[in-house]
Amino acid sequence: GVAPNFVINGKEYTIPMAIEESSVVAAACKSAKFWASRGGFKTQILGTQKIGQIHFLFDGKTELLQSFFKQKKQLLIDSTSSLTSNMRQRGGGILEIELKDKSDLIEDYYQLHLSFETVDSMGANFINSNLEEMAKALEQFANDHGALNGDKLEVVMRILSNYTPRCIVRASVSCKIEELASEGVSGEDFARKFKRAIDIANAEPYRATTHNKGIMNGIDAVIIATGNDFRAVEAACHTHASASGQYKSLTHCSVENGMFTFWIEIPLALGVVGGLTKLHPLVMKSLEMLGNPGAEELMGIVAVSGLAQNFAALRALVTTGIQKGHMKMHLMNILTQLEATLEEKQKIAAHFSDKVPHHREVVNYFCNLRGIPAPKVEK
Amino acid sequence: GVAPNFVINGKEYTIPMAIEESSVVAAACKSAKFWASRGGFKTQILGTQKIGQIHFLFDGKTELLQSFFKQKKQLLIDSTSSLTSNMRQRGGGILEIELKDKSDLIEDYYQLHLSFETVDSMGANFINSNLEEMAKALEQFANDHGALNGDKLEVVMRILSNYTPRCIVRASVSCKIEELASEGVSGEDFARKFKRAIDIANAEPYRATTHNKGIMNGIDAVIIATGNDFRAVEAACHTHASASGQYKSLTHCSVENGMFTFWIEIPLALGVVGGLTKLHPLVMKSLEMLGNPGAEELMGIVAVSGLAQNFAALRALVTTGIQKGHMKMHLMNILTQLEATLEEKQKIAAHFSDKVPHHREVVNYFCNLRGIPAPKVEK
Repeated sequence: GVAPNFVINGKEYTIPMAIEESSVVAAACKSAKFWASRGGFKTQILGTQKIGQIHFLFDGKTELLQSFFKQKKQLLIDSTSSLTSNMRQRGGGILEIELKDKSDLIEDYYQLHLSFETVDSMGANFINSNLEEMAKALEQFANDHGALNGDKLEVVMRILSNYTPRCIVRASVSCKIEELASEGVSGEDFARKFKRAIDIANAEPYRATTHNKGIMNGIDAVIIATGNDFRAVEAACHTHASASGQYKSLTHCSVENGMFTFWIEIPLALGVVGGLTKLHPLVMKSLEMLGNPGAEELMGIVAVSGLAQNFAALRALVTTGIQKGHMKMHLMNILTQLEATLEEKQKIAAHFSDKVPHHREVVNYFCNLRGIPAPKVEK
Repeated sequence: GVAPNFVINGKEYTIPMAIEESSVVAAACKSAKFWASRGGFKTQILGTQKIGQIHFLFDGKTELLQSFFKQKKQLLIDSTSSLTSNMRQRGGGILEIELKDKSDLIEDYYQLHLSFETVDSMGANFINSNLEEMAKALEQFANDHGALNGDKLEVVMRILSNYTPRCIVRASVSCKIEELASEGVSGEDFARKFKRAIDIANAEPYRATTHNKGIMNGIDAVIIATGNDFRAVEAACHTHASASGQYKSLTHCSVENGMFTFWIEIPLALGVVGGLTKLHPLVMKSLEMLGNPGAEELMGIVAVSGLAQNFAALRALVTTGIQKGHMKMHLMNILTQLEATLEEKQKIAAHFSDKVPHHREVVNYFCNLRGIPAPKVEK
């Protein structure tokens, strides 16, 4: 589906969404329209650093390892220079290497913790290739005669981290509280109920899981449409939600000084080059529909999609419940599948306006209306 | 893709996987083959309860609410009897309602916490419809003259939880340590390195995120192929990973008494009826390929797919690194896209066996081999 009418940083977007739940696209459209007349969405990039780690064991003294690292740091960076030359030309590369002592957690366990800038690519292959090359160099330097007094250094793993707390985007909406009034609910009442729904998600992990699941409905739909890796984004966002020690809401809300502000801050490591982006025709079409954004602009669009989804869900939840909208979509999906005419759709929708549209009952009612026999039910 | 040769509880399966990363299917195949000759995978259902909650505020005394709940409990269950009749016939329905006092977290905040059995359906619509109906009854009973001494009860939200710690499946593999020997690594050495990789994921959230992301690669591919909701499964699994207060590995490993055992325990709320299952032709084909399993059997298959993926990833990580396999797949994808012949593929693979197959270089090498001009690079 596509969700039009998104206004982000003053610019209009139609957002492509690849998802099996049509209600997710409908919810995005509703939120987009609501906020388009209330100042639109704003986004801000809070960081773009990606992370990779070389996990290793060292059975000697920490001080010895530290001085070895200090001495070899530049050589370690240089060891990957042929791999990073293209990326450096594009403004990226290795930003920093730190030696981390984790031997309090596991005996002899240390890390080289690397930060990368990968510009418009998600960077997984780039980071992993760099880490594997650097790990080779690390072992080689360590084995050099006398470098570590004969103490053993053994690389265990070298791989990027999908948890990117320094590759963060913020998306927000804000308006006067009275501007929230709609469908017979006052702005003040709406703001109070809305904020309480977020307070509950922060207090109760059972609720936070579903709250964030709804956000990911919106996020993943754009991630998939633009050829990115939704498992990476899911893992990063959920780890982020649990970073305080309790699993909490990814969105936040403040109601003060007459203003309602609602925002999301999430880690998103995205690419608009590499991977599927040039291989899948619908991915190319989706990126084109968004005006061929860079990775940072795409981060903003994706975050907005998540925020919009959460706004629609909470709005429904604290007012009519979500089933009404769901069931209406469900009914329309069945009728479309049955190739019902507009007139038939209206009649059948009127009949089911106060009933749950179970698949079989809708089919029976439709067949009855057309005067054709209802199909037998498969066992 | 499809991953053949899975042996689960003694039965052979070919597992359908819907995913854009071909290396995920390749990894599944490799693990399936490895374990087929070492006793196969075993699964066990540890629970199938789903959760729904009615979140409400009550500004009176807790004791009064407790006696009100005790008195109305059966009537609340009865309020949904028309919605649950079909489900009860299939062996499901509402299992239990508890009143939970959460007023220590948020002033006046309480919950009705419901457990459901939804048999072969995922149950989201069923649970939400029940909760909305019951919430209406709850407010109505509370408003009855004198029932709550005039104290106010206000429903805030009513919705299922995607966090289902009592809907859990376990999948495992086990063999003698010496049987793990392969590709020049001894069984003992492999087991030690493998276990250490899991210890690291448990100690270091940066690693756990990626570790679990890899597991979800396998899980989501089957979830999507079988028409289930991957956002729900992602949310449940990651919340589960963070339940201890630190984000940790979803898989576990023991190496003792000469035996290597590797297992996963995850919450999975799946359906094989309802939703997309009868609507999407490839979903029907996928379920057919699995022998049209019930929801419990599918839970086992999905968990196995996650475990198999993690086994393949850790095996590669603690030995050759993951880039070798990735890059080989990457090269083959490019060559398939270029419609290279088998002979051309072999020649080009030999050339890139010790080089990183960058897209442009592969295309250039291919064109050179065929004696055709290389395409211009788009800006």
